[in-house]
Amino acid sequence: MNEERWLLPAGIEEVLPPQAQVIESLRRELLDLYASWGYEMVIPPFIDYLDSLLTGTGQDLDLQTFKLTDQLSGKLLGVRADMTPQVARMDAHHLRRETATRLCYLGTVLHTMPDGFGGSRSPLQIGAEIYGHSGIESDAEILRLTLLTLQTAGIGECYLDLGHVGIYRGLARQAGLDASQEHALFDALQRKAIPETESLIGGFGVSGGAADMLRVLAELNGSDALQQADTLLKGADAQVREALDYLHALAEELGRWIPGYSIHYDLAELRGYRYKTGVVFAAFVPGWGLEIARGGRYDDIGQVFGRARPAVGFSTDLKGLLRHGQGLEERYRSSAPVYAPWSADPALRETVETLRSSGRRVINALPGLAQDPRQLGCQQVLAERDGSWELQTIDSIDIDSIDTDLNSHRSQ
Amino acid sequence: MNEERWLLPAGIEEVLPPQAQVIESLRRELLDLYASWGYEMVIPPFIDYLDSLLTGTGQDLDLQTFKLTDQLSGKLLGVRADMTPQVARMDAHHLRRETATRLCYLGTVLHTMPDGFGGSRSPLQIGAEIYGHSGIESDAEILRLTLLTLQTAGIGECYLDLGHVGIYRGLARQAGLDASQEHALFDALQRKAIPETESLIGGFGVSGGAADMLRVLAELNGSDALQQADTLLKGADAQVREALDYLHALAEELGRWIPGYSIHYDLAELRGYRYKTGVVFAAFVPGWGLEIARGGRYDDIGQVFGRARPAVGFSTDLKGLLRHGQGLEERYRSSAPVYAPWSADPALRETVETLRSSGRRVINALPGLAQDPRQLGCQQVLAERDGSWELQTIDSIDIDSIDTDLNSHRSQ
Repeated sequence: MNEERWLLPAGIEEVLPPQAQVIESLRRELLDLYASWGYEMVIPPFIDYLDSLLTGTGQDLDLQTFKLTDQLSGKLLGVRADMTPQVARMDAHHLRRETATRLCYLGTVLHTMPDGFGGSRSPLQIGAEIYGHSGIESDAEILRLTLLTLQTAGIGECYLDLGHVGIYRGLARQAGLDASQEHALFDALQRKAIPETESLIGGFGVSGGAADMLRVLAELNGSDALQQADTLLKGADAQVREALDYLHALAEELGRWIPGYSIHYDLAELRGYRYKTGVVFAAFVPGWGLEIARGGRYDDIGQVFGRARPAVGFSTDLKGLLRHGQGLEERYRSSAPVYAPWSADPALRETVETLRSSGRRVINALPGLAQDPRQLGCQQVLAERDGSWELQTIDSIDIDSIDTDLNSHRSQ
Repeated sequence: MNEERWLLPAGIEEVLPPQAQVIESLRRELLDLYASWGYEMVIPPFIDYLDSLLTGTGQDLDLQTFKLTDQLSGKLLGVRADMTPQVARMDAHHLRRETATRLCYLGTVLHTMPDGFGGSRSPLQIGAEIYGHSGIESDAEILRLTLLTLQTAGIGECYLDLGHVGIYRGLARQAGLDASQEHALFDALQRKAIPETESLIGGFGVSGGAADMLRVLAELNGSDALQQADTLLKGADAQVREALDYLHALAEELGRWIPGYSIHYDLAELRGYRYKTGVVFAAFVPGWGLEIARGGRYDDIGQVFGRARPAVGFSTDLKGLLRHGQGLEERYRSSAPVYAPWSADPALRETVETLRSSGRRVINALPGLAQDPRQLGCQQVLAERDGSWELQTIDSIDIDSIDTDLNSHRSQ
């Protein structure tokens, strides 16, 4: 038994130094970024009543959610698998503001099963949401913030897949699909299973233009998919054309902020379409099959908590960002620590306090341990000269003398 | 059902703005403090195999630990109720350094039942540990860091209760108590149940000097308890006298670093005595019955993970610190945000980016919402004058004109 006590469950990570410091630094930089855009931080609870977690956007999360029994209430609790429903509840129930509200959050979520092969079960979810505004400007702001998040994390190359749930929803309605048919076809489209899509459309008795348009949807992706859709979905109902027009307008708005940015479209991109109500998007990095960030509009999310407000947001996994980000360890590397003797000499204490306040790390020698300060990463020691304490480079002095000096400087 | 979806389980908190920002700021200040002393951050996992969580220092945590079944392995998982055993595992198994190792950590832990009346079940545990050094210097450093933590959190008035498990352990051995007797008496001492203590001592057949010394232990607390113990425990075995001498030496060492600091002693303070091996301490604030921070020495903690190293550390609850800290909201209050029209005008964008990079918060107007920027806390807006964008105080300009201007400045 003993020899396995250090094993971690699959998909559950511990983070050692110096990696933990990189996570902490990126965490701060991103939260500061959101704060500078006016996003206020909230901290949702780690566990919650299960029925509260699984409402609204949480409906898809049932199987991903760890369940616990609450000894106090006898009710079922869940460990959050997604913080979005909790943040929506904060806006709808506890903040109840009349103004547009921008919130950001960060925290560990747990999943019963890993996403994809070798995936994590404990992402460090970070995200931002705008409540109370419906329109391309809030969509554009969230998209800009998504891209800025990836850029801040050192991810230079990535692309956005943009879609709109109104397109599939409108086409399904136009084809006369009932809810279960709509769901089955959605499922096949998500998997880009074209033969299955074909046979479902035929099996549902859809024919003519409506069938053609549903059929073509799976192929409408790429940077010119929106132009193609204008032609191929010409015969669609007003709802579909409005969604297409909306995407055109959003792309134009985004182009004003990020000139020359090339948007990809995926009109069958429908993740979370059961609760999404408008734009949906996902960000990808080349050579990595899974999305690295995602988001969209879900205007009714607050309804189950007593107040429907327009809402748009995005989220990502900070640990996933680290996997793909370039140059973060160098960016966040702190300067080498300073080694100080163990001595309560007031002059030394003052020097140490000044160094620490200025952001330097100072490690006190611990008497009795004959350790080389360089093993702790130190390149300098504090040494006494004429009653004052000065930084000295370790190479310039005799290590043996340090060990004795530093470690026996006690209680002078 | 709907109307209860916003309810939180008892003892589980969500944190709204601006309180979340205060927590984040204090979190950063404390982690930066530990870093400046050379403590490296680690991030233990939120869930772990249950038998890994409940080893060593975790033995007392069984009833406090939420259990989960792992669908992947079929094994029992636990949600961490204390991060100390996890950090010890990191030192013992994954870091395996030869040098003294200083680690710090911060994260939410969950308890099945709240501590005390109205207590939390989700403390935000923060702490620091030194591995690989045995002696008063590492004890003193941890005590200094504990006090500095409380001071940083704005807790001016607090006192330390210092004890040493060697005292009770030695007296129990001297009195010939077996393990179950030792445990029963320990339990009564912890509750300061003096009549019960008396009757247990009698019932165990202990008499004479050994009985007197056990009896007096419950009353050995206060700032002169150590002096009293020198007299009252004069007849104790060497182990007890060594522990008393150790406390004297530690108090002397601490006095060199914090001149004039008055230490309280509680020689029956034995929290976690099953795994503690030396000094134990707890910090209290006046008028609050529960301890606010605690720690001690537990030299064998790494053994179950394959490597016993000396260890001493402390931990506290960041949310508990906030409850008692003075002036934190003022200290961490950020300056009022700036309101900016929705416009992709390059000159405006540059001004906004400069402000944001300098740490100011800038909130973009969202067209279509006729909101008063002051409702968002803004005191200034960015307004155009002769082609450049300037900060203007809101009181000095006509609010009606802002609403129209800012909100319709779109797509110029």
